[in-house]
Amino acid sequence: MKSQLVNEISGQRTFVVVLDPGEEAFAAVTAFAVDQKVGNASLTAIGAFERATVGWFDPNAKTYRKIPIDEQCEVLSAIGDVALGDDGKPSLHVHVVLGLSDGTTRGGHLLDGIVRPTLEITLVEAPGHLRRRKRPELGVALIDLDA
Amino acid sequence: MKSQLVNEISGQRTFVVVLDPGEEAFAAVTAFAVDQKVGNASLTAIGAFERATVGWFDPNAKTYRKIPIDEQCEVLSAIGDVALGDDGKPSLHVHVVLGLSDGTTRGGHLLDGIVRPTLEITLVEAPGHLRRRKRPELGVALIDLDA
Amino acid sequence: MKSQLVNEISGQRTFVVVLDPGEEAFAAVTAFAVDQKVGNASLTAIGAFERATVGWFDPNAKTYRKIPIDEQCEVLSAIGDVALGDDGKPSLHVHVVLGLSDGTTRGGHLLDGIVRPTLEITLVEAPGHLRRRKRPELGVALIDLDA
Repeated sequence: MKSQLVNEISGQRTFVVVLDPGEEAFAAVTAFAVDQKVGNASLTAIGAFERATVGWFDPNAKTYRKIPIDEQCEVLSAIGDVALGDDGKPSLHVHVVLGLSDGTTRGGHLLDGIVRPTLEITLVEAPGHLRRRKRPELGVALIDLDA
Repeated sequence: MKSQLVNEISGQRTFVVVLDPGEEAFAAVTAFAVDQKVGNASLTAIGAFERATVGWFDPNAKTYRKIPIDEQCEVLSAIGDVALGDDGKPSLHVHVVLGLSDGTTRGGHLLDGIVRPTLEITLVEAPGHLRRRKRPELGVALIDLDA
Repeated sequence: MKSQLVNEISGQRTFVVVLDPGEEAFAAVTAFAVDQKVGNASLTAIGAFERATVGWFDPNAKTYRKIPIDEQCEVLSAIGDVALGDDGKPSLHVHVVLGLSDGTTRGGHLLDGIVRPTLEITLVEAPGHLRRRKRPELGVALIDLDA
């Protein structure tokens, strides 16, 4: 992973982060957010994975159904946000659409994705922080703007 | 719906808007734009819907073909913009990609979507306003930068 | 193509670019970046194409497999970035998800797309420039933050 602070205006930092082949994207971006103390950000990214796991949230089971994508795929879109979790650490939430070799697509809540050959991320931070709170009755953590 | 003005720099306001279960997303974001007098903005969002209706624009019929998605789906991407319509009110244009329980996707021009459990929106406003004008010969309203 | 500089803050320019029916999107956005001397930017877009060609990167063949989409399709998401290529000129990288008339989707690395009736692009430039360098061992050009 390499990153560059491409702009900083009145507490709004914009980073370009580029992941290397073999890196697991969710962990790498989380580590970046921890390292840079990011508590409130949105991001977009494109690139490709050699394989990934996405999730579909089952509101009855209150958990994510895991969907493995075991093939080289374009990351057609990755959109996400960063808030602080219940533990006070940066919590990343990213959804992806993946393009297969025949042009069809798959997608879901990003659980993990192994980069090949690149993932190009633009992350725009806002000052302060947001809170993401576990909601046991729903089975998921949601941004809580009252927190 | 809750919202927070997370940054304001030289007339550029950035909002995080979080929708609640049961809210209809298109109406809720439009209401937010009206309330905040947003005349020029772009947005991205992720979350999930319990059901939605998307449209595919048929250039021959000059209208949208409605495609119902009657199942719980991840909002893998929502990308949109706000301009002022012919009536001078904020006019929202959003396209979505939705992820089904088997990881396949559907998508289109967002007509309506019922949130479950959340929709997390980042909206960046620019100063001034853009105009979206009805184009009867096309059957659709398009941003008119000459207006 | 029409464009408007909707905001400029401390060297960060935000443009709205609207493409016209019949324009080829990749060439048009590249021409815009050349004209405006954009060396570092991210973009999102929505709209529709009457036809397009997308690519899936084959890491073994080290080239893109071309996938033609020969029908009217919604541009559900277009996410991309601009850097300077080895020739010093703006180099555009865009991935798209396209929505067909039945609500299914296709997508890939954007090679070309003919606009019908519009493509609405928000492009946010950062100061300075990034470099995209050809990597013959991979068969692709990647952003090089050390350059």
